Amino acid sequence: MLEKLDLTKALGKAEYKEKITVLEGRLGRLQRECKELGIPVMIAFEGYDAAGKGVQIGHLIQALDPRGFEVHAVKKETQEEKFYPFLWRFWTKMPAEGRICIYDSSWYRKVLKDRFDGKTKEKDVAAAFRSICSFEEQVTDGGIVLIKIFLAIDKKEQKKRFKKLMRSKETAWRVSEGDLKRNKQFDRYQMMHEEMLAQTDTDYAPWNIIEAVDRKFATAKIYAAVIQTLEQKVKEVKKSRGNTEAAGESNVAEDKTMLAESILTKADLSLKYSKEEYKQRLKSLQKKMEKLHGELYRRRIPMVLGFEGWDAGGKGGAIKRLTEHMDPRGYVVHPTASPNEIERAHHYLWRFWNDMPKAGHVTIFDRTWYGRVMVERIEGFCSKKEWQRAYKEINDMERDLTDAGAIVIKFWLQIDRDEQERRFKARQENPEKQWKITDEDWRNREKWEQYEEAVNEMLIRTSTPNAPWIVVEGNCKYYARIKVLETVVNAIENRLKEEEKRG
Amino acid sequence: MLEKLDLTKALGKAEYKEKITVLEGRLGRLQRECKELGIPVMIAFEGYDAAGKGVQIGHLIQALDPRGFEVHAVKKETQEEKFYPFLWRFWTKMPAEGRICIYDSSWYRKVLKDRFDGKTKEKDVAAAFRSICSFEEQVTDGGIVLIKIFLAIDKKEQKKRFKKLMRSKETAWRVSEGDLKRNKQFDRYQMMHEEMLAQTDTDYAPWNIIEAVDRKFATAKIYAAVIQTLEQKVKEVKKSRGNTEAAGESNVAEDKTMLAESILTKADLSLKYSKEEYKQRLKSLQKKMEKLHGELYRRRIPMVLGFEGWDAGGKGGAIKRLTEHMDPRGYVVHPTASPNEIERAHHYLWRFWNDMPKAGHVTIFDRTWYGRVMVERIEGFCSKKEWQRAYKEINDMERDLTDAGAIVIKFWLQIDRDEQERRFKARQENPEKQWKITDEDWRNREKWEQYEEAVNEMLIRTSTPNAPWIVVEGNCKYYARIKVLETVVNAIENRLKEEEKRG
Repeated sequence: MLEKLDLTKALGKAEYKEKITVLEGRLGRLQRECKELGIPVMIAFEGYDAAGKGVQIGHLIQALDPRGFEVHAVKKETQEEKFYPFLWRFWTKMPAEGRICIYDSSWYRKVLKDRFDGKTKEKDVAAAFRSICSFEEQVTDGGIVLIKIFLAIDKKEQKKRFKKLMRSKETAWRVSEGDLKRNKQFDRYQMMHEEMLAQTDTDYAPWNIIEAVDRKFATAKIYAAVIQTLEQKVKEVKKSRGNTEAAGESNVAEDKTMLAESILTKADLSLKYSKEEYKQRLKSLQKKMEKLHGELYRRRIPMVLGFEGWDAGGKGGAIKRLTEHMDPRGYVVHPTASPNEIERAHHYLWRFWNDMPKAGHVTIFDRTWYGRVMVERIEGFCSKKEWQRAYKEINDMERDLTDAGAIVIKFWLQIDRDEQERRFKARQENPEKQWKITDEDWRNREKWEQYEEAVNEMLIRTSTPNAPWIVVEGNCKYYARIKVLETVVNAIENRLKEEEKRG
Repeated sequence: MLEKLDLTKALGKAEYKEKITVLEGRLGRLQRECKELGIPVMIAFEGYDAAGKGVQIGHLIQALDPRGFEVHAVKKETQEEKFYPFLWRFWTKMPAEGRICIYDSSWYRKVLKDRFDGKTKEKDVAAAFRSICSFEEQVTDGGIVLIKIFLAIDKKEQKKRFKKLMRSKETAWRVSEGDLKRNKQFDRYQMMHEEMLAQTDTDYAPWNIIEAVDRKFATAKIYAAVIQTLEQKVKEVKKSRGNTEAAGESNVAEDKTMLAESILTKADLSLKYSKEEYKQRLKSLQKKMEKLHGELYRRRIPMVLGFEGWDAGGKGGAIKRLTEHMDPRGYVVHPTASPNEIERAHHYLWRFWNDMPKAGHVTIFDRTWYGRVMVERIEGFCSKKEWQRAYKEINDMERDLTDAGAIVIKFWLQIDRDEQERRFKARQENPEKQWKITDEDWRNREKWEQYEEAVNEMLIRTSTPNAPWIVVEGNCKYYARIKVLETVVNAIENRLKEEEKRG
């Protein structure tokens, strides 16, 4: 999830000031409401060293009545705390009704720093996740609002911050040996974070991932996340107590869009290949693909490729070039339409499980189970609870596949709105392609922004190290097709290398 | 959970016939209702070899319209199935709306037979449980009713059945090498079952544990379990669709009581010691306890002892004798009263977490967190969903404690109703003990049957190998006190032996 973040996000000073004044007011009012309603709140801050947890907590509490909250700095366990189960110190520091507890790093230490340092043994990691999930489910079932904030910066930015701190005597002590070691082995440490996010991003306690390079942007986004979660809860509680008076419409909606993930806009759609270059690369890649497909079969490695993207994004063309030189007995392409009657009578993942490849085979899905968090979400074909739950359900399914040895890759074919219009029109004008364009396509186009938000959230929440999302810059079809082929070829080659290493 | 079962339960022929006729009719009607409402149903049968899964499925489907169900026999994975993730074959064999799928052994094979045979490696067990829990949560979230049936017999009964099968040529083939090996290592296999039950006994898919030595008893209890679960679901679905017409009151309630767990009635309350014998044993045990308490401290082993039981069951006396020779700096007794205002403003487990012992210390709870599934359940102080969820919450908490190295034992002090009356009266007549008896005690006494049912369910669902329940036969106070002391002494001695072995 983390490699997908756009860490260049920033907020201007004037814009920040304007926003934050509104947000502070809103949060203050919400705190009072939570107090009146007796809602307990836990806010856990996690994130890389020097990502600014302390600073951000400082900003957040600006808006709060100091009589209503406590901040707990979670350090290495004390001698005393070591004598208890690791969750004990959090159970005992739990907010009473109407109160807020803020944790400057949290119970996740057990599966992050302590794991990195070898204090948590690898064999105990699964049990620790079990304990953490059970803990979070219990407290939220018990009525607590649990808000989890993750502050992300990258290796370079972290190094820069460490250097700056070390330059002055007054701040040098804040950079520890451990900090530098974790920076050096940033990739290893990041994988632990990825695993943590995948295992604990639940519907009852989802992660809020914050791009934290720009301090002001991060502050605003944290405010928005906290406010949105609390408003939701306040509404629910009022409703359950028969108070039908709305909790006041949120001011956060528009901020949310502004502050949303923007993976898609990061895609450089000017990337392209000339026809000449395309042909050359295509030929060489397809030849490789042919050979590698045979290797997959021989070694009984299954592969699942999912294709999503804007209408007319070029999914069909990319799949065609990918499979052109593959042995048709070894792969199958499943186009995913709206579910038929039998499929509707089953669990939404049922039809996809039915089509999963067996060992040594390749299944390509032209549109996938991600419909749940895109079209079904936007058209209201499933409830909010259902699509929110789906991120973890899907991550779990893909994990089941990769645990069983499969290669799983998901492609998002990205084009911009103008390019889509050009392609739609071209289709309409071409009698042989007219069937490819319907009124529905034009209607979906009008919901571009809604889809963009849903897709961005989907990419963040379901791109995992074991089953990554690849955003394919698709304005130039040649470029897109080559990138897809290249990605698949590389993934297979890497796997074969790994297997050889293991012997 | 399994060692607590009363496998002597049986049903007479006449009684069985009368009951089963009613139950069959009810189940047939329920199947039709589920079909109309579009409710999909999965019924998974697990249990020891020769416990009668096939026979019981045969009896259950008597009541069903054959056009509405399928039975899936889950054998070793076929060559084909091995090429998929292990859950694949269950995802693809999932009921459509309104249909029933019955599984003759199920996805639990992965953590039972395959684990026993070493096909599932120990390091992969945690991941398998994760997959299973996620699978069950997903399908039940998706609207499927999942009924899990576990058929229990003991080692001796199993051996007897194998022998009988092997005596005849026609049936000998049904007993495999594997069956005999599992019978030989029954204890090891049972531990895997215990772990499975503890990890997967959830509120969304609880286990129905069936005493299966007597075939007729088991059949009736399975019927009752299936009917009860379906009636509950039918009611919910009707309610959610605005159909307020009650689903017809259950006929099963009375059967349920008859068929309920009866751990308590198994307790042999005639067990006793003479005063002489008591004194002698007490002295020797207390001396041991004194020494062992020091060892606990020295080795930094924490210990949690919970005491529950009927009013006037003798908890206080037992605790007094237990602690008499213990160093008061190393233990503390927490009496648990109704929660005060601060405690009520927190999660129900919060106050107990606060009082957990640190390493090397002993905490004794006079009444415990089990109030959630007894008094709170019976008096309606929490919702049904809340107390049903509590079994797993409590198991998870105790697991957190034992994972951190604690010894955890829970005692239930059992007396019969007459004995309680004698003790109540004696207290009333003794001016020094009058404070011990209140009107509430007499009121609780009237709910004896309700408590009995709740206690039996609690003992089954929360007695785990890591944190067992000990039922203490308490009509003779001498006997009870010695049994408590003996149990604690043995538990510590066993732990010390284990630690020595580990070196």
